[in-house]
Amino acid sequence: MNNSVLAVIHQHASIRRYKPEPVPPALVETIVAAGQRASTSSNMQAYSVVAVTQAETRRRLAELCGNQEHVAEAPLFLAWCADLSRLERVCRQRGYQQVSEYLENFLVAVVDAAIAAQNAALAAESLGLGICYIGSIRNQPEDVIALLGLPKLVFPVTGMTVGWPARQARVKPRLPLRAVLHWEQYDTSHEEEDIQVYDQQMIASGLYQGRQIPAPGRSVRDEEYGWSEHIARRAAQGARTHLRRAVQEQGFALK
Amino acid sequence: MNNSVLAVIHQHASIRRYKPEPVPPALVETIVAAGQRASTSSNMQAYSVVAVTQAETRRRLAELCGNQEHVAEAPLFLAWCADLSRLERVCRQRGYQQVSEYLENFLVAVVDAAIAAQNAALAAESLGLGICYIGSIRNQPEDVIALLGLPKLVFPVTGMTVGWPARQARVKPRLPLRAVLHWEQYDTSHEEEDIQVYDQQMIASGLYQGRQIPAPGRSVRDEEYGWSEHIARRAAQGARTHLRRAVQEQGFALK
Repeated sequence: MNNSVLAVIHQHASIRRYKPEPVPPALVETIVAAGQRASTSSNMQAYSVVAVTQAETRRRLAELCGNQEHVAEAPLFLAWCADLSRLERVCRQRGYQQVSEYLENFLVAVVDAAIAAQNAALAAESLGLGICYIGSIRNQPEDVIALLGLPKLVFPVTGMTVGWPARQARVKPRLPLRAVLHWEQYDTSHEEEDIQVYDQQMIASGLYQGRQIPAPGRSVRDEEYGWSEHIARRAAQGARTHLRRAVQEQGFALK
Repeated sequence: MNNSVLAVIHQHASIRRYKPEPVPPALVETIVAAGQRASTSSNMQAYSVVAVTQAETRRRLAELCGNQEHVAEAPLFLAWCADLSRLERVCRQRGYQQVSEYLENFLVAVVDAAIAAQNAALAAESLGLGICYIGSIRNQPEDVIALLGLPKLVFPVTGMTVGWPARQARVKPRLPLRAVLHWEQYDTSHEEEDIQVYDQQMIASGLYQGRQIPAPGRSVRDEEYGWSEHIARRAAQGARTHLRRAVQEQGFALK
């Protein structure tokens, strides 16, 4: 089973080194227009994207996004935002009162933004561009909000660097399919075995060599440091514990 | 600018009538494997998908998802779930304590699930299948959770019907691009104009004819009932106000 859509999907690897050549505005429009074609809950289109090309803003974003150099290097940064502010303005204009205070309202906008972003990512990759999702846009959301001029009820869900790859990246192995695909009901009966297989695969890939996450009092040799050890250390770290406060300050009550 | 990826993206329309022929398991695996190739935050792979093919379960899901007949009719239903339970088991096995109590942790898993779902959707459509996102999987989440046997820290974010289209659907117009794409900073200067254009386009499409959302004391002729009136009525309705409680009961504290 193969076709060019599946081929582009299977070639995906996050690109973190970019050539300096800009992404022409017409190409940015092609990419975002592809994002618009994704499904959107009740056709609410509850998302916006801010395209940043100015070098100074990209440099500042890099600082705000965990000092990731490629955020400054990539000629284009897309900030994918959950957006209920447009609907707020539409409601006001039509004489209605928007319900936006529930977790559901935030979730609808987050999912709209995420699936539009993924369509755009594939569109970009189909055109020879590389991309990398930037979850660390949520490290200092208040500063990103101020920098991009986001009004209340707009929240940056994920960033995305876009540009011409300066270096290809390796496609990263994923968990065996049956670890994420359950038939009829959720089923963990073969999970341990699947994770062991994946651990060995990731160890063999060498992707973790020299990249261990430190854990106090633990010492694991590279030959035994697989996905489960790596990801458990990651999952044991708290991150962005301020997120709820920042989302609520943007006007999403999350009731 | 065109290629076969953009062509598939631009042909998307939600399919709500399906032929009875099943989706072969190998095809389901191809679709979900495409989902796996999407980016995932820190390679956490914090999502799962439950593939439902049994007619009785699909019938029950249709009842739980707002009595949408096509949920029973489609030969395949995919329940895309935020999943931190796998990481919980991995952490326990490796002797770590997962941090899962923050909104950030839930959001990471939701975004992982959503972008995997969109990759899968495009993969399915590239193979001639039709899909429809089913947000109403969140109408009665506790019942869906029981039906699919989802453990704590697994939450159904969105459903998806998949099958061979019995009827093609029309591609729905979207807002003008510049209503969702902002350059450098968020900008609403031309929004009113853009929405007026879109209102006229949606009125001309006839998509709302006989499908007005009732609003107490309001009467709008079909010739004046565009996207803004329709979506304002929708946005003024509360929906799934129980979601936060249901998510928290599944173990996501959302701190």
